[in-house]
Amino acid sequence: MIKSLTLFVRTVRTPNVALVQTRLASQVLPQLSATKYNVKRKEFGSVQADDVNFFKSVLSEEQVLTEESDVLPFNIDWIKNCRGQSKVVLKPKSTKQVSEILAYCNKRQLAVCPQGGNTGLVGGSVPVFDEIVLSLSLMNKIISLDEISGALVCEAGCILETLDNYVKEQNLIMPLDLGAKGSCHIGGNVSTNAGGLRLLRYGNLHGSLMGVEAVKADGTVVDCIRTLKKDNTGYHLKHLFIGSEGTLGIVTKVAVHCPVLPKAVTLGFFGVKDFDSVLKLYKSAKASLGEILSAFEMADNDSISSTVQNLKLPNPIADFPFYVLVETHGSDETHDAEKLSRFLEREMSSGLIIDGTVTSEPAKMQTIWNLRESIAGAGLLDGYVYKYDVSIPAARYYDLVPVLRQRMAGKAVKVYGYGHVGDGNIHINVTVPEYSKEATDMLEPFIFEEVSKLKGSISAEHGVGFRKPHFIHYSKDEGAISLMRELKQLMDPNGILNPYKVLPDP
Amino acid sequence: MIKSLTLFVRTVRTPNVALVQTRLASQVLPQLSATKYNVKRKEFGSVQADDVNFFKSVLSEEQVLTEESDVLPFNIDWIKNCRGQSKVVLKPKSTKQVSEILAYCNKRQLAVCPQGGNTGLVGGSVPVFDEIVLSLSLMNKIISLDEISGALVCEAGCILETLDNYVKEQNLIMPLDLGAKGSCHIGGNVSTNAGGLRLLRYGNLHGSLMGVEAVKADGTVVDCIRTLKKDNTGYHLKHLFIGSEGTLGIVTKVAVHCPVLPKAVTLGFFGVKDFDSVLKLYKSAKASLGEILSAFEMADNDSISSTVQNLKLPNPIADFPFYVLVETHGSDETHDAEKLSRFLEREMSSGLIIDGTVTSEPAKMQTIWNLRESIAGAGLLDGYVYKYDVSIPAARYYDLVPVLRQRMAGKAVKVYGYGHVGDGNIHINVTVPEYSKEATDMLEPFIFEEVSKLKGSISAEHGVGFRKPHFIHYSKDEGAISLMRELKQLMDPNGILNPYKVLPDP
Repeated sequence: MIKSLTLFVRTVRTPNVALVQTRLASQVLPQLSATKYNVKRKEFGSVQADDVNFFKSVLSEEQVLTEESDVLPFNIDWIKNCRGQSKVVLKPKSTKQVSEILAYCNKRQLAVCPQGGNTGLVGGSVPVFDEIVLSLSLMNKIISLDEISGALVCEAGCILETLDNYVKEQNLIMPLDLGAKGSCHIGGNVSTNAGGLRLLRYGNLHGSLMGVEAVKADGTVVDCIRTLKKDNTGYHLKHLFIGSEGTLGIVTKVAVHCPVLPKAVTLGFFGVKDFDSVLKLYKSAKASLGEILSAFEMADNDSISSTVQNLKLPNPIADFPFYVLVETHGSDETHDAEKLSRFLEREMSSGLIIDGTVTSEPAKMQTIWNLRESIAGAGLLDGYVYKYDVSIPAARYYDLVPVLRQRMAGKAVKVYGYGHVGDGNIHINVTVPEYSKEATDMLEPFIFEEVSKLKGSISAEHGVGFRKPHFIHYSKDEGAISLMRELKQLMDPNGILNPYKVLPDP
Repeated sequence: MIKSLTLFVRTVRTPNVALVQTRLASQVLPQLSATKYNVKRKEFGSVQADDVNFFKSVLSEEQVLTEESDVLPFNIDWIKNCRGQSKVVLKPKSTKQVSEILAYCNKRQLAVCPQGGNTGLVGGSVPVFDEIVLSLSLMNKIISLDEISGALVCEAGCILETLDNYVKEQNLIMPLDLGAKGSCHIGGNVSTNAGGLRLLRYGNLHGSLMGVEAVKADGTVVDCIRTLKKDNTGYHLKHLFIGSEGTLGIVTKVAVHCPVLPKAVTLGFFGVKDFDSVLKLYKSAKASLGEILSAFEMADNDSISSTVQNLKLPNPIADFPFYVLVETHGSDETHDAEKLSRFLEREMSSGLIIDGTVTSEPAKMQTIWNLRESIAGAGLLDGYVYKYDVSIPAARYYDLVPVLRQRMAGKAVKVYGYGHVGDGNIHINVTVPEYSKEATDMLEPFIFEEVSKLKGSISAEHGVGFRKPHFIHYSKDEGAISLMRELKQLMDPNGILNPYKVLPDP
């Protein structure tokens, strides 16, 4: 699912605000989220002239937006699915300003919607009603980079790609990479526990984040900025702010561990006879390639053939029931190519790989990645596409696809699955001639129930946001949900931080 | 500090309880912690006959220990520094039993001290007064291992080494390794966020733990057992239980991601002219060895020369101001040896390495590791040793050693530093002819103040436990400490879980 967006964002990158406004003005605006999803406003205060004056006393004039046309882009998510009704956007330049704003809003019971790069997919970054938008975009300073340990400290509003380019000068890379990297903020990445393309290799943000500074709803600053790999002095508080989507506090600074930039990248693309062979191949790749394995992706035949047909893209190998893409990141090109070739030879003799190609040429690698990344968008040409982004334990990874094919027989044009085998994250697409309530009801909540039975996750990387709180019980039990509510109550007793998001209504 | 213990535990491993009892009986018992550290008992209930009867109704007879000789080993930490006064040890066999015990204790306000392998170094795993010891030792079942994804699910009382041996059969390793692995429990590792010898390579437990099941003070079970690498459905609750040392809940099950077992291990031991060269060499090793670098350790001349002299150990290379130990874990012996040799050649020409040796022979590797691991114990032969286990950002890693040498001139026999450069974790030893209050007062809190100024951690991996709550403010600011208190109040309002530990007195 994220891949199609990936391509879009990769083209657009850091959109020019004026351009966005023009584009928005020239288009039909999305329906208001409140109407579309039938949500009732909670009992927060409303922003008055006095409040705006207060904000202007804390911030400078240009950091407070109240003109409708200025505020509009901040009200709409980039996939144009959600639209809020905020009247004020605040753009603090320091943690102190964030703290003063929140302390004030908390007293006045004014709701606040924190916003990073606004590249989310579940409506988490735009207001639902008239929440004040708190944009972190002006907090974009890089504070320090320890080139020896790889510890980068920066403000939350830094754009991921800017950081990646910055650390590259010291032969380092950011431990995460997303399609949206040209627009997304590191603070948003942390707040949503963004996964992305490097997770198999460099792990998740809970592992690579060294420190966080965050501001609680009452304005208290929690300073957990440290650049240490080992620190066992008390509770590990930073994790409260990773992935809680701005509902427990607003992330203002982060310290990230940056791994060494790989010197060599090699790609293999293989044809495989069944899903069982995909799994066996994954196990073999882990053993043979071990430390250089950076991606292990799969796609079934329908995924690739639809993409090849619909988008007229070349497939570098013949037609196979399943395809596997293996990427390595290493420090020695000769060694890496040797490992990958040896793996290919062995598994071709074993019969796990029927055919395949291995390349280190950038253009050829791009062709293969392009085919893989285009799958998500290609289905749109067949009609309407239902897209699910779920995690399922490895052994059952592909189980849902045949189940859904049977269930949707005669209703769906195609049901196909592809994704990050290495992360247990499968994208399931169901294409139908056109959207219908009947098809929706056959799919939902059925698919979430099935994922739940498999002890999977109904949102692998996209988060909960505004769109999924009512599905959260499929992935969290009552004990966990009630602990979430208690934490929310503790950290934000007035519920002013990103309301209508993450937590289901009681 | 942990290294000397390492050697001891490696000899002792899973100690026979009868043996321990005999040993304890034949020795002078350590002073009671309450007396030694002048602690006042908090207002908890006391265990009565009725309570014991209740425990016997939930557990079987042999799961409830009340005989003084049976209870004694659970009252004393293994470095014999702390001694509690518990009268009852409970050994539940299931989460349900843990839950019933805690629900009861919470109602009766009976304090509970959870205990894993009791291998901690800060008195966190033994009672201070008459807290009920809740030993997880009978919850030692391995539940499942997904050989494809590497997800291991097991009960909290499993011994780390048992798990490591178990997963090795599937060509996997546990992501952590400690000297105490023959005795320590995985539940204890999680509760203390154990670091250990593989952290540089495989990251910390916040990254490699996939799921946790824990029981809150009121008996509520929080089931966050998942075997998924990606799951963004709501708050990431498991992190509350990682490293909170049993004060927020008792870990009963864990799901751990096990990486692939490396096929090749190579070791290099190098002489270096100054600490600046150590840092430059670390940066170069990260770049050249990248993905196969699994350890980068340093020791200054005093560390090695004391060890060589005091313990009559061989030093495989000549006398140098600083020593560096580099270990690689990889999937191809030839490639790894090539990388390491090339690194050695390059840095010998550059002058960073003055002399060195590279080996893959197990016996030779053992000799080098043995020298490195013996440093901690060797100093004891010079008199009394003050030992500090701190993290400091890379660039300032060694700063404290010369500062302390100057400060302790004429007082100390030696001041030396060694440790895990790759993790920013330095062990500083100060040897004096004998313990004195004067020397202590010159060192403490001076050293903690200095660490605090450097934004370091006063406890890199050992935790806070019973011994360090009053130093915690050197590593956590007021905002963080007050959030810790709020979390404690939320999760355990009666304060029954591991009292007198982690949190400083208000």
